[in-house]
Amino acid sequence: MADNKKRRRKDSIDDEQPFKNKLKPDASILETLKDFSTASSSSSVPHALTLQDLTLPFRCREVADLSLSSVQSNIESLILKIAHSIISGQGFSFDVPSRSAANQLYVAELDRIVLKDKSSQRPFANISTVRKSAITARILQLIHQLCLKGIHVTKRDLFYTDVKLFQDQIQSDAVLDDVSCMLGCTRSSLNVVAAEKGVVVGRLIFSDNGDMIDCTKMGMGGKAIPPNIDRVGDMQSDALFILLVEKDAAYMRLAEDRFYNRFPCIIVTAKGQPDVSTRLFLRKMKTELKLPVLALVDSDPYGLKILSVYGCGSKNMSYDSANLTTPDIKWLGVRPSDLDKYKIPEQCRLPMTEQDIKTGKDMLEEDFVKKNPGWVEELTLMVKTKQKAEIQALSTFGFQYLSEVYLPLKLQQKDWL
Amino acid sequence: MADNKKRRRKDSIDDEQPFKNKLKPDASILETLKDFSTASSSSSVPHALTLQDLTLPFRCREVADLSLSSVQSNIESLILKIAHSIISGQGFSFDVPSRSAANQLYVAELDRIVLKDKSSQRPFANISTVRKSAITARILQLIHQLCLKGIHVTKRDLFYTDVKLFQDQIQSDAVLDDVSCMLGCTRSSLNVVAAEKGVVVGRLIFSDNGDMIDCTKMGMGGKAIPPNIDRVGDMQSDALFILLVEKDAAYMRLAEDRFYNRFPCIIVTAKGQPDVSTRLFLRKMKTELKLPVLALVDSDPYGLKILSVYGCGSKNMSYDSANLTTPDIKWLGVRPSDLDKYKIPEQCRLPMTEQDIKTGKDMLEEDFVKKNPGWVEELTLMVKTKQKAEIQALSTFGFQYLSEVYLPLKLQQKDWL
Repeated sequence: MADNKKRRRKDSIDDEQPFKNKLKPDASILETLKDFSTASSSSSVPHALTLQDLTLPFRCREVADLSLSSVQSNIESLILKIAHSIISGQGFSFDVPSRSAANQLYVAELDRIVLKDKSSQRPFANISTVRKSAITARILQLIHQLCLKGIHVTKRDLFYTDVKLFQDQIQSDAVLDDVSCMLGCTRSSLNVVAAEKGVVVGRLIFSDNGDMIDCTKMGMGGKAIPPNIDRVGDMQSDALFILLVEKDAAYMRLAEDRFYNRFPCIIVTAKGQPDVSTRLFLRKMKTELKLPVLALVDSDPYGLKILSVYGCGSKNMSYDSANLTTPDIKWLGVRPSDLDKYKIPEQCRLPMTEQDIKTGKDMLEEDFVKKNPGWVEELTLMVKTKQKAEIQALSTFGFQYLSEVYLPLKLQQKDWL
Repeated sequence: MADNKKRRRKDSIDDEQPFKNKLKPDASILETLKDFSTASSSSSVPHALTLQDLTLPFRCREVADLSLSSVQSNIESLILKIAHSIISGQGFSFDVPSRSAANQLYVAELDRIVLKDKSSQRPFANISTVRKSAITARILQLIHQLCLKGIHVTKRDLFYTDVKLFQDQIQSDAVLDDVSCMLGCTRSSLNVVAAEKGVVVGRLIFSDNGDMIDCTKMGMGGKAIPPNIDRVGDMQSDALFILLVEKDAAYMRLAEDRFYNRFPCIIVTAKGQPDVSTRLFLRKMKTELKLPVLALVDSDPYGLKILSVYGCGSKNMSYDSANLTTPDIKWLGVRPSDLDKYKIPEQCRLPMTEQDIKTGKDMLEEDFVKKNPGWVEELTLMVKTKQKAEIQALSTFGFQYLSEVYLPLKLQQKDWL
């Protein structure tokens, strides 16, 4: 109470910003970042392990980005094979890879989930599979059409082209994922794209559908991340790192303050749950520009969950994990240990719900957390203190505390895990 | 069933696109649009009625866009007045305009909702209002700080600057709206902005925070609409109309096909529910460029509801309706009568739920629907047939039916209401 009175009497709240006096000059922080960036770009080579490099006790299945013409010819060969099978009296059946949980596996060396090679038959001449095989044939036909026209559509468009057959979108969506696996290509190679949600701003130049985009000249709004990654190219950057931000509000603060000009970086956000377009875009940046990725998420189990989706994929698209995931994302903040370290006031912390605590405990059992002792320590602390906090909680020290003190100090101290 | 078999045998589904043969050459459609655009820009002058022009039987309250320095001096005068009141022994109290439904009114001449001038006292020396008046003083102080720093923050940031006092965000949000009304300015004038959600693409050049943006060179992703409308300016365009699209998927189709190059237009979407940033941006385009606005929404009560929010505002921000609404939006499609006209197959239509039907019937009673006989007719048809359809339903005639047949024909026939 006494503290509170004292605070109200001051003209400015700037004096109370914890650790502001610890900040070194920007030039010194930039030196630290340059070392980090160089180390990261050279160390990322041994990281580029593929399934082929490993001697696993079973065969695994992965998909790749294929060109439209390869997708087209893959469909044509598949149909030809089936025609042969029909003519030779062996009937009409699709060989469909299993995408069930039992067929999924986390591979520690790759740090992502992959599919094992179990598959099943989907014969047309069987009452239990006739509908699904008809849907499969129809989806193949529609994708073939997209290849010929060279256009992109959404899953919803696909569904509406034959509502009578598909009945509901869950059915056409599921078969679409089957078709990806069957053809051995990513869903984006099929020219079926997700709605766009993410935005990017900062030291990045790239081409979107032939137009050159300079992300330092995108004002505060930023550039909407394109839904079709295959038309994104020519990435150039003088950034030292990529800053992945969970929330829109923090993104806005950094964009308005042009944080990327003080510390050369690329700032990207999916505004909450990561969508496929943003995940593909992040991966492409990381791969082509060889930059380290630092993540700024809420200090709660969902913040870490979001980090994990970017980092090692979601379970229902595990067949595509190699193309959707960005390895080696560092957890910059807001981490549970930051709450005390940065003296976040009690009233800006939120009590975790029963569900939060359960989610946190479950995550402690996940491979992607366990492999990083620092993360285990932080998550254990969160579950023990039963407290969470949003990135916005830093506003308690002033609206620009995030961009002017918290992040610069984090970078200066290389305080990421 | 016979139809279905026949369809499967064809090589292409293009032949089955209804009305494709009715399309005239683009040059002829462009002539129609030029006439419409010219008529619209000259007719929009008498439309610019303000509250001052009307002789209403009571006083109304509206807010205006104010510069940061005006907001700052308004706050300073307000506080000075209160200081005088305290010194002269009359105590400390805020005079707060009422934003309740009883104080709201739809004004047909303006075609939007406004606030009547009822207000109430919020004294500090009263147990029932002491907290609210303390919150009001604190919000005024924080806004004053934003004015001095010239930065933008979100409502969430504002809340976190004093969680102990505000307790939960609903309280700081509500007082923020009070403060807008008290100062007579829009919420965006306070530099408190909403999260951005919308995107824009097409024949528009504008400046965002000092950067010039050419929306014909934004690829398929488009430009994210900036959260802070006060830093948007220098709008230039050779478009003939603005196409307001409800959904992301339809937006994507039009952006990829560069529809705006065939029929010069600006395409904008909020991806569902209209957010404040997109509404402000649409209004600014309409006002500065004097272009007609055509809306493409789902054929269901919510599509029309969305149109109404753009057109005449939402109830809880009625004090700001003059700045947030775009008058004279035309309902281009998808309209209930289009379902039969364009032969949308039965299986692509969806049955309306009880709730849908109730919403539809309620809307028939709303002033903004009643003033447009064409809309009443369409909505009555919807409620009678109990059928709805999404924009995507047009994909049943081919993925590009929307951009290649439906919209061009709509434009050619001036088929809007």
